[in-house]
Amino acid sequence: MDPYVIQMNGSGNLPSVVDVHVNIGGRSSMPGKAKGRKARWSVKPSDMSNKTFNPIRAIVESMKVKPNPDKTMISLSIGDPTVFGNLPTDPEVTQAMKDALDSGKYNGYAPSIGYLSSREEIASYYHCPEAPLEAKDVILTSGCSQAIELCLAVLANPGQNILVPRPGFSLYRTLAESMGIEIKLYNLLPEKSWEADLKQLESLIDEKTACLIVNNPSNPCGSVFSRSHLQKILAVAARQCVPILADEIYGDMVFSDSKFEPLATLSSNVPILSCGGLAKRWLVPGWRLGWILIHDRKGIFGNEIRDGLVKLSQRILGPCTIVQGALKSILHRTTQEFFQDTLSFLKSNADLCYGALAAIPGLRPVRPSGAMYLMVEIEMEHFPEFENDVEFTERLVAEQSVHCLPATCFEYPNFFRVVITVPEVMMLEACSRIQEFCEQHYHSAEGSHEECDK
Amino acid sequence: MDPYVIQMNGSGNLPSVVDVHVNIGGRSSMPGKAKGRKARWSVKPSDMSNKTFNPIRAIVESMKVKPNPDKTMISLSIGDPTVFGNLPTDPEVTQAMKDALDSGKYNGYAPSIGYLSSREEIASYYHCPEAPLEAKDVILTSGCSQAIELCLAVLANPGQNILVPRPGFSLYRTLAESMGIEIKLYNLLPEKSWEADLKQLESLIDEKTACLIVNNPSNPCGSVFSRSHLQKILAVAARQCVPILADEIYGDMVFSDSKFEPLATLSSNVPILSCGGLAKRWLVPGWRLGWILIHDRKGIFGNEIRDGLVKLSQRILGPCTIVQGALKSILHRTTQEFFQDTLSFLKSNADLCYGALAAIPGLRPVRPSGAMYLMVEIEMEHFPEFENDVEFTERLVAEQSVHCLPATCFEYPNFFRVVITVPEVMMLEACSRIQEFCEQHYHSAEGSHEECDK
Ligand SMILES: Cc1ncc(COP(=O)(O)O)c(C=O)c1O
Ligand SMILES: Cc1ncc(COP(=O)(O)O)c(C=O)c1O
Repeated sequence: MDPYVIQMNGSGNLPSVVDVHVNIGGRSSMPGKAKGRKARWSVKPSDMSNKTFNPIRAIVESMKVKPNPDKTMISLSIGDPTVFGNLPTDPEVTQAMKDALDSGKYNGYAPSIGYLSSREEIASYYHCPEAPLEAKDVILTSGCSQAIELCLAVLANPGQNILVPRPGFSLYRTLAESMGIEIKLYNLLPEKSWEADLKQLESLIDEKTACLIVNNPSNPCGSVFSRSHLQKILAVAARQCVPILADEIYGDMVFSDSKFEPLATLSSNVPILSCGGLAKRWLVPGWRLGWILIHDRKGIFGNEIRDGLVKLSQRILGPCTIVQGALKSILHRTTQEFFQDTLSFLKSNADLCYGALAAIPGLRPVRPSGAMYLMVEIEMEHFPEFENDVEFTERLVAEQSVHCLPATCFEYPNFFRVVITVPEVMMLEACSRIQEFCEQHYHSAEGSHEECDK
Repeated sequence: MDPYVIQMNGSGNLPSVVDVHVNIGGRSSMPGKAKGRKARWSVKPSDMSNKTFNPIRAIVESMKVKPNPDKTMISLSIGDPTVFGNLPTDPEVTQAMKDALDSGKYNGYAPSIGYLSSREEIASYYHCPEAPLEAKDVILTSGCSQAIELCLAVLANPGQNILVPRPGFSLYRTLAESMGIEIKLYNLLPEKSWEADLKQLESLIDEKTACLIVNNPSNPCGSVFSRSHLQKILAVAARQCVPILADEIYGDMVFSDSKFEPLATLSSNVPILSCGGLAKRWLVPGWRLGWILIHDRKGIFGNEIRDGLVKLSQRILGPCTIVQGALKSILHRTTQEFFQDTLSFLKSNADLCYGALAAIPGLRPVRPSGAMYLMVEIEMEHFPEFENDVEFTERLVAEQSVHCLPATCFEYPNFFRVVITVPEVMMLEACSRIQEFCEQHYHSAEGSHEECDK
């Protein structure tokens, strides 16, 4: 019998060992007793996959409550502006894709960092005198997520650490920990419109600090840093010689009373990798087109970091070429009205939601200035029934069929996050249900110790 | 002066140290002398990016020769069937994308492993009684490259090893080494139509072997394994308890005289992750849609490996949703004529190229049965001017403007690889230039030691 023919009807997990001698390189040996041979099946997931932890998924999955069957579900939990159909992308964006398809020119492999022409378009779109950009400074990626992944992968070794905002987007932790990179959390201060606590931030830096992540405008806070605050952050980075990963996926998504300042325009010496993409501003998160803009006017990253990014990009070969081919038209033909309409809708929903929640005893929303979110503090002392934000939001689903993410997902207990991209009527309905919920569970803290102390 | 305001006109790479006391957590300290503070900029790429090595890029870049200016360049080096425009995708495929765009339903985030409906479509397309598939067995990825990356990342820890074919696709090495996974090369035998040397393969397995990569049909060989050879490979895997990563990106791309057998249909006990995608068969490699099919009838992977893959997929969130949305129509509407036309074109080009090169003294092509490639042995003893395949192909560019990849790129010296997707006239022209080149450099080995010994 041929020793290499498998027995198709072997039973159980144990392979049917074929007991013959096999001659390996002239030396006769028993395959059944070969050195180091595994006696039986044992396939375990790698440490990396075990370490890949998505807090949102874990927390949401552990919230095993059913919505109230008498109320339709309103989800204010997903940072996807497309789910309700009220925020379609610009028709020009769809047309640009069809043109790219019809041209037949964008079906083949692009360079792993993206077509030169597409990188040129991004460079000229984001170029400005204070932060010049050329095609060589642009790497196209599969979403902003991969942009962040590549930046962390090139900057940090296992055992090093990165500084991450708290509250902050959970992907930073997920990616870093899967790569064995430690995260250190610096605080954003709700009472200062979520500015960073610079002293605490600086105190975290040590010689193993590989980079500082600055997310502006912020998910989950909806906050927008002022020019002067950004300058202060840059001063810390400059003083401590720490490069910055600027997550600017919500860049330009700020309400009329604020201004978005790209971080790189404010510094000529701190090396900055700015990550962005089409997802939010063009309202097409599923298309997975992101980018890294390399700002390095003093040559601190040098060719080594650039080459490192290029090498890493070759592992999975960049974003969909149809979207790359459409990029020029997407950047040039999307109308200003489209952006303005999106922003005025978000602003009006933000005002509406802020106003409604601010009037509810026990809640303290923080007014947002951009992005698509708003954070709400729960005065837990007034809701003694609930142990924490997870329980609060869980009960809110069970009783009112309104789903908000507990801010524990963003390392920030006792808050919850509201997504403000839902249609206005839903926003209003959700707020009034939250009000009803709070009224039903509010206990005035009269006579409690906290009150006495104040 | 505010210590957190950056000095914009600081000079050089050294930050302008702002010499003030900063109070950290009540403790006064000098930022200029903080424990562990970096005294100056030093940003180095990570070990992972240093270890990310693309042999094709390295070898091709080191081949710094100019083509012959009197002859137009013919590139037979890139495994991209779209570059010459002679192999457009099926119009139904393009139409499917436009329909997906027009529906407006596929702009948002999909689950990180892909839409359920798209995974159902793949499952039913590849389902068969011997290897049943459901949606839960399918993970959509950003190209087959990411499919392979996820499989390696879930199966192997740093320090473990994987078995990789020689000659073989270079991405296996690139990915494995970047993750600290060792590769062990098992031999494919040209004299046996590139079947694996099973004894040598088996001798490589030890207790640190995390998986065996089987690439069928093969890049770079164009070979297609017979059913009985695949069964023998499965027998080794079963006996040694090693799971298989089947790279079947060229699945179904076989010429009429061969048959493609999906590996998973031949075994009911070896756990198999089969990687595929739209790239080659549908001729749209730039679209970056790939998949993993999980075959695990004996539950050896179990939920752990499945969950591990799901977790890893969340790091960058899957392929472009427009392509996902188009998948159903792509799978159902692509005509059989389209596939047949592609294959008969490839077969005719393969015959043509094989015939022409077989007639050239000093070359020994190996007849392909599928995929888009053909390997050619260089009888180096007849070309004493050239040290190796790299030099041979380099001179071929310089003199004849024909570019083939030296098979050193695939760990297989003294061969070169020909891509057979070029238009027929180009194929013929390339072959006749290769002939001229060989005639000019051929030295009959008469009187040499080799001849005497024969
Ligand atoms: C702050 C932040 N960064 C990055 C991303 C990821 O963007 P993408 O969908 O382009 O990967 C998100 C998505 O929600 C985000 O909120
Ligand atoms: C054998 C093999 N596997 C995988 C791939 C990668 O496929 P994709 O372009 O879908 O990432 C290729 C591409 O050439 C290949 O030849």
